[in-house]
Amino acid sequence: MNQTIARVEALCLTVKDLPGEHVDEVQVDWEGFVGDKHYGLTRKLGRHHQPYTRGTEVRNTRQVSLVSREELDEIAARLDLSHIDPAWLGANLTLSGLPNLTQLAPGSQLHFEGGVGLVVDGYNAPCTTAGGYLQTLFPDREKLTNRFPKAAVDLRGLVAWVRVPGVLRLGESFSVEAPRSVPVSQA
Amino acid sequence: MNQTIARVEALCLTVKDLPGEHVDEVQVDWEGFVGDKHYGLTRKLGRHHQPYTRGTEVRNTRQVSLVSREELDEIAARLDLSHIDPAWLGANLTLSGLPNLTQLAPGSQLHFEGGVGLVVDGYNAPCTTAGGYLQTLFPDREKLTNRFPKAAVDLRGLVAWVRVPGVLRLGESFSVEAPRSVPVSQA
Repeated sequence: MNQTIARVEALCLTVKDLPGEHVDEVQVDWEGFVGDKHYGLTRKLGRHHQPYTRGTEVRNTRQVSLVSREELDEIAARLDLSHIDPAWLGANLTLSGLPNLTQLAPGSQLHFEGGVGLVVDGYNAPCTTAGGYLQTLFPDREKLTNRFPKAAVDLRGLVAWVRVPGVLRLGESFSVEAPRSVPVSQA
Repeated sequence: MNQTIARVEALCLTVKDLPGEHVDEVQVDWEGFVGDKHYGLTRKLGRHHQPYTRGTEVRNTRQVSLVSREELDEIAARLDLSHIDPAWLGANLTLSGLPNLTQLAPGSQLHFEGGVGLVVDGYNAPCTTAGGYLQTLFPDREKLTNRFPKAAVDLRGLVAWVRVPGVLRLGESFSVEAPRSVPVSQA
């Protein structure tokens, strides 16, 4: 009998442009995945986000991007592709055994077997950059650049930041801890 | 006609023991409120928290403690006190105009008029430390040490960390931004 185990299916680093590169393990420190383009304790806003102007320096809560194997399979099915390699999207961490990864609430914590801890910042909105890369891989498919963000809208995964550093390895199991909620009134 | 404005009612720094000290403005950097005991980019876990052992170094998401004026008034009423000074609790930031502050979801952002940005980590569970200090102020009240955490259970406010540094001043207005949610499926 098979039991579903939540585990690390793939690890990818993206130095600059897509695609990312698959690796077997990643050094994780307070700034993120060492060697990835999103590494850093702070980042500058790429566009105006009320009330902050473009270029404002903010804490980098988008150090790591996460996808689920099951959600990538569903996006592939919607686009009539045999599969989607997470490196095509620049996804740092591909998990299995947690099919509705994208639905995890901000503040959820992921505890990995080897000691690394990540905190979910929130939803990673799909964009035409990844769609554009898919289009170059499948030039005979029509409008993949724009169809990708539509097909991936509720399945694109999350961004997260490092709570506990360490080394993250392929195949590690992990558990999820929900954000702390407010108890019901005793008044 | 009065209009409710969400604003900063009090600012307090606690160097070591309770009570904190009221100040008119606070320097806020990536590590928290400069001069407060909870200042720091990381902290060591004070007790075992599955799967981490006591002493594990984690990102400090409890840099700043927040309470609402309205919730403090309700706690005071439950304890038959005329009022509660936030400095008695070591609360760094007292807000008004947001009566259900404690209900804000983890990941919510607070944008202050002067440019400082905070992110809600989560609920700040009330403890007997603050209750014990209240007891020293009102020695004739029975069992205040233990009655405080019970009276404050759903009103104790939040802990948060700095997303955008700057200077925070008494009387500033602020706005709240909800965490990014996942869009409804278009499939």
